[in-house]
Amino acid sequence: MVGAIDINCDLGESYGRFKIGNDDAVFPYLTSCNVACGFHGGDPQTMEQTILSAIDHNVVIGAHPSYPDLQGFGRRRLQMDGGELKAAIKYQVGALKAMCESQGTSVRYVKPHGALYNACFSNPAETTAVLEAIEEIDQNLILMGLAGSLMEEVSVQLGRPFIAEAFADRRYTAEGFLQSRSEVGSVISTADDAVQQVLDIVMKNQVTSYDGAILDVKAQSVCIHGDNPAALQILQALDQAFAEKGIEKKSFIS
Amino acid sequence: MVGAIDINCDLGESYGRFKIGNDDAVFPYLTSCNVACGFHGGDPQTMEQTILSAIDHNVVIGAHPSYPDLQGFGRRRLQMDGGELKAAIKYQVGALKAMCESQGTSVRYVKPHGALYNACFSNPAETTAVLEAIEEIDQNLILMGLAGSLMEEVSVQLGRPFIAEAFADRRYTAEGFLQSRSEVGSVISTADDAVQQVLDIVMKNQVTSYDGAILDVKAQSVCIHGDNPAALQILQALDQAFAEKGIEKKSFIS
Amino acid sequence: MVGAIDINCDLGESYGRFKIGNDDAVFPYLTSCNVACGFHGGDPQTMEQTILSAIDHNVVIGAHPSYPDLQGFGRRRLQMDGGELKAAIKYQVGALKAMCESQGTSVRYVKPHGALYNACFSNPAETTAVLEAIEEIDQNLILMGLAGSLMEEVSVQLGRPFIAEAFADRRYTAEGFLQSRSEVGSVISTADDAVQQVLDIVMKNQVTSYDGAILDVKAQSVCIHGDNPAALQILQALDQAFAEKGIEKKSFIS
Amino acid sequence: MVGAIDINCDLGESYGRFKIGNDDAVFPYLTSCNVACGFHGGDPQTMEQTILSAIDHNVVIGAHPSYPDLQGFGRRRLQMDGGELKAAIKYQVGALKAMCESQGTSVRYVKPHGALYNACFSNPAETTAVLEAIEEIDQNLILMGLAGSLMEEVSVQLGRPFIAEAFADRRYTAEGFLQSRSEVGSVISTADDAVQQVLDIVMKNQVTSYDGAILDVKAQSVCIHGDNPAALQILQALDQAFAEKGIEKKSFIS
Repeated sequence: MVGAIDINCDLGESYGRFKIGNDDAVFPYLTSCNVACGFHGGDPQTMEQTILSAIDHNVVIGAHPSYPDLQGFGRRRLQMDGGELKAAIKYQVGALKAMCESQGTSVRYVKPHGALYNACFSNPAETTAVLEAIEEIDQNLILMGLAGSLMEEVSVQLGRPFIAEAFADRRYTAEGFLQSRSEVGSVISTADDAVQQVLDIVMKNQVTSYDGAILDVKAQSVCIHGDNPAALQILQALDQAFAEKGIEKKSFIS
Repeated sequence: MVGAIDINCDLGESYGRFKIGNDDAVFPYLTSCNVACGFHGGDPQTMEQTILSAIDHNVVIGAHPSYPDLQGFGRRRLQMDGGELKAAIKYQVGALKAMCESQGTSVRYVKPHGALYNACFSNPAETTAVLEAIEEIDQNLILMGLAGSLMEEVSVQLGRPFIAEAFADRRYTAEGFLQSRSEVGSVISTADDAVQQVLDIVMKNQVTSYDGAILDVKAQSVCIHGDNPAALQILQALDQAFAEKGIEKKSFIS
Repeated sequence: MVGAIDINCDLGESYGRFKIGNDDAVFPYLTSCNVACGFHGGDPQTMEQTILSAIDHNVVIGAHPSYPDLQGFGRRRLQMDGGELKAAIKYQVGALKAMCESQGTSVRYVKPHGALYNACFSNPAETTAVLEAIEEIDQNLILMGLAGSLMEEVSVQLGRPFIAEAFADRRYTAEGFLQSRSEVGSVISTADDAVQQVLDIVMKNQVTSYDGAILDVKAQSVCIHGDNPAALQILQALDQAFAEKGIEKKSFIS
Repeated sequence: MVGAIDINCDLGESYGRFKIGNDDAVFPYLTSCNVACGFHGGDPQTMEQTILSAIDHNVVIGAHPSYPDLQGFGRRRLQMDGGELKAAIKYQVGALKAMCESQGTSVRYVKPHGALYNACFSNPAETTAVLEAIEEIDQNLILMGLAGSLMEEVSVQLGRPFIAEAFADRRYTAEGFLQSRSEVGSVISTADDAVQQVLDIVMKNQVTSYDGAILDVKAQSVCIHGDNPAALQILQALDQAFAEKGIEKKSFIS
């Protein structure tokens, strides 16, 4: 066995009759899932069903809180002040936590969604608000964020645990950020390219940026987006590649 | 001492810049407060501040979940199926529960809001969905509802605890329901009338309907609406009347 | 030519990143389209694009206003009073009207969506509010509704024009209502069954209820639901059947 | 008569049961009103009533579109792309336009609300999106914005009419921007200070910044915020000062 890696995916993002993603199909391939909490997707009944599916598939549950922006799917930056943001995170994570506990399971980590995730890269105030919120809701909750980013730095500074993740299906810039979704090619849509990127991450702790730079990346988890139309193919191809290379899929929760 | 009664009030119903009620002024007079959970009012930051105020004033906290209808302030009947409704209640109560626990306190009871409260009178399915939701979130949570109504009946049938409440500032019909808000005079707006109604409830276990019928009412709590413009005067007049009559204000939580 | 019929479809129901329906595929087969106006689906940008597609395909545009209930996709009954409902309809139809005019086209009719459509069957107050709203926004707007229903009756009584529609993909009750979506089989999902129902409507002015009753139906338009997964197959099969039978597809707007 | 000035106010910002402002009291003092269009406040029924009040008081109607952010009252910056923003403006202005025309009146100008207004200062893309939107909805609509700002500059460059406004109740920075609401003292709350600022604007075409700089300001309209608790006193004091100085209150629409 050359190594082990967690595979996480954004799930439970449907909203009422509006369906997003292919949750039933991808659940069997995951070790962790980031569950939408109602602000960018994920109505309460969808949250319930997603929790039950996670239990069925023995997948670790994380909360996936967002700016309050259903219309923009949480992908638009919204200037909330620190107190507003912290309360919004507590509300979302708290709702999921209580719903998980009502089903005999628990939330183990928190990963900010969309534009909030990106805001945490460049804005220590935003990362701090998120860290304070999750510490107040449950001291055992772990922040998940971009490997090597300000999120990791601030977490370490504040003595808080951190799960570093890398992306299977998103291109990186030479600076180690995610290339903007508005750029053509920023989302990797073929299984081959995604598998190559993941193998580089797991076996070499490296990723190649869209413009050819080689970046150091130390990640404990790899993310595949649930709304990527190729998500299922990528996950199946990863399973095969992992079997060939002797890589174990395994949650970061021991 | 001729008796003791709990005084509850709907609070925390402001939403962002939209302010409703006079929470700071009424808090000192309450023994219980029903905290809005975001679906008819009560954004996350307002919820936080309301929890902190309840702690400061040593007031017992209840959840006040609603249909998802901010525009209608939860006062319009919305036909949700049982699963949807149950999940919506779990989400709201769960969010408040986690936020309370983050401040070192806890939610002790649940009182449905507005049109959902009224729906529970005439609809056992709706009351059952609410009871199942709160039992799943926390077995110790108690339903609060209209004294003598179907809500009380269903709770007793299912072996669940129940807090019966009566209203200081709403007129009753001869059948023991609340007179519709669309009727003139349905909201009691003078302190004298409200005090008289409360004294009848506490001392005689009776209330007089708007059309003169004498009803039996056994209540452990009395509600004053936070958005009643006369709320503060009613609460002050009640204090004086209670002092004269030797009635103690006391939470139903011993 | 044995006759002519209008084919309408609910379109533009996507909301931001939440995609519903297969608009691009079905547009070429329609003569009329019912465009969502933001309250159950249809964000402003989706509305713009739907208007442009309707112009491209020379399809007549109708407004498809709803109760304000994105989470329930407008399929849950919401008890709005007459003034509230009328203003909500005016707002939605008005927004679409102005956006159509900005592209050099116009709204020609209004068809209530989902639970509001159903409410209009049994509730003259609701139909009246809708009729008043659309008359105030534009005297030339025509109400579209279920053939033979109270909507038709009230429209005739008030001297207002009316487009009677029947359904290709929904089963009828013996009373001439639509069978509830909560019943198995209420949505027709095979092209053969749908074609048969449409041919009966167009050629015999009849429809067979789910339990075998023969109903008289006089319709000027036939509806296929855009979110029916079989919508495209049904529309293609209809084209073939119409060609064989000599039925012309034609808008009710001459 | 030494001059004439338009007085505008943000109105119709209540949302369902959530009441904001004191519209009935301030309407008699206005020559123009900026009507909320549902995205930061202003449900459809409130819009209807505000239009009727404007007609009663012979006040010119402008649209007051916002980012879609009810919780933040449109005062939080939201990163919408140009197409999204343009469609959102068209939807809001279009709805108000159609509702005005249904009452026999019309929208005459458009003033962006809150964070969108501020975004237009520093961002030509945002101003351009707004200008394109209003031109498409109605070629006769005029943009209203901050005197001397980028909004004025871009409007002039594009050959579009522009109404320059100054503020009675907000402090300016030395650069001619509005001081942020998060700064203490940024909102002028005494009638004397507001009157002095308005007289300087009207009679000297000047305003003094919070830190003592004298700025040139050429304005055709002066804004008082409807949610300023001192709004009514300011308006009454202005009337008296205008009478003394021989200044006429008059809409910019001749």
